[in-house]
Amino acid sequence: MRFESRSIDKRSVPQDTLTGALNNRTGTLTDSTNVDSNLRETTASQAGAIRIDLPDWIPRFLASVTTPLADDRERMAWVLDLARENIRAGTGGPFGAALFAADSGRLIAVGVNRVVPAHCSIAHAEMVAIATAQQRLGHYDLRQALPGGSILYSSAEPCAMCLGALPWSGIDRLVYAASDADVRAIGFDEGDKPSDWISGYARRGIQVTAELLREEAADLLRGYAANGGEIYDPTATDHGDS
Amino acid sequence: MRFESRSIDKRSVPQDTLTGALNNRTGTLTDSTNVDSNLRETTASQAGAIRIDLPDWIPRFLASVTTPLADDRERMAWVLDLARENIRAGTGGPFGAALFAADSGRLIAVGVNRVVPAHCSIAHAEMVAIATAQQRLGHYDLRQALPGGSILYSSAEPCAMCLGALPWSGIDRLVYAASDADVRAIGFDEGDKPSDWISGYARRGIQVTAELLREEAADLLRGYAANGGEIYDPTATDHGDS
Repeated sequence: MRFESRSIDKRSVPQDTLTGALNNRTGTLTDSTNVDSNLRETTASQAGAIRIDLPDWIPRFLASVTTPLADDRERMAWVLDLARENIRAGTGGPFGAALFAADSGRLIAVGVNRVVPAHCSIAHAEMVAIATAQQRLGHYDLRQALPGGSILYSSAEPCAMCLGALPWSGIDRLVYAASDADVRAIGFDEGDKPSDWISGYARRGIQVTAELLREEAADLLRGYAANGGEIYDPTATDHGDS
Repeated sequence: MRFESRSIDKRSVPQDTLTGALNNRTGTLTDSTNVDSNLRETTASQAGAIRIDLPDWIPRFLASVTTPLADDRERMAWVLDLARENIRAGTGGPFGAALFAADSGRLIAVGVNRVVPAHCSIAHAEMVAIATAQQRLGHYDLRQALPGGSILYSSAEPCAMCLGALPWSGIDRLVYAASDADVRAIGFDEGDKPSDWISGYARRGIQVTAELLREEAADLLRGYAANGGEIYDPTATDHGDS
């Protein structure tokens, strides 16, 4: 270890940084300059964890599916209902996603935007759906877990983060509704994307079906904004002094 | 609800899809065509959750910090040690990251790559570090949680996903070591990135310091590959039949 040979001068350290320096829940340090010697006794459960839960209403929502979601339009209409319910319940941003097995048509996992309630900027609907599917199936690569392929339906075109995430996930196909322009129109900064990302996906064996039920999805976004829904954008404010 | 008015024909459904259709741990469906009526009684804890833990050795590693990590070079050298320990312990890919408060110099959170052990393709070191910091601080926007600003140190240039994720996180500065080319050279498909992403970051108030301790970081990556470390790439195999 790089620092083992360095001497420790505890005299220079305020006592309160020597106790409780490690937050028990997350394992993060409150002061990096010195570390409580009790850290050596901390348990694995204190080593930190990220947790993203789905809203309480998800089981009831799944229970409302009483007939097969047989084709792209039915599945996307249902994903838009999912996004709409996330708005109505106040449990996150106006986005939904669902992952289906390509061969059997089985619903594998759902996701909704959980950024604000989960205190987690990575908790976009697509990320929640793919990570939930992977952890449920026990593999980081959906092509290994679902050899028959999988399809992600998203209520909106993925942002720069989600665009980068999907090739890592092992999905075979992406279907989305609202366009990038529709999402930016209500104020979300979707980030800089590579030009012609659909070709990049094609080179990696991921097919894209764009703007299915776009108008319905765009209406949903406009309604969210019109009703005062939170449009988070950490980079919108001026931080020139930082 | 869109499906409420549709009739249910349970006769067409195999009985085993009507029981246990919801996986209790994750809340994902095992068959989308019909849903067990017991779903209506499922509890919130069954609604699904993503969980990403840090390795057991993290507290011991944090305890090895006995002097301040005062400048960029010291912090990056420590982040490279973090990545090296993740390789040695066999607890994930060859990447590490750490978030520091810009004003106080406090270490806020660490991250290592956890893709394979956590069964989660989004568990890159940078994502783990920012999400851990946000959940510890209780806000999705680090500019709100840390008004004095924050700096993310990463052992390698972020992939397309992490590049997209960082502007959402509210960091003010990124410092990385190994270049994109160094990471691709050992086989990881970092994805298609926007051209001149550093300018895009600058427009959003995020400063970038590139390739600090690059050679040391590239050596670390080459050593990982030479020792047979797993290079996951879901899109590398031919899935033309899916």
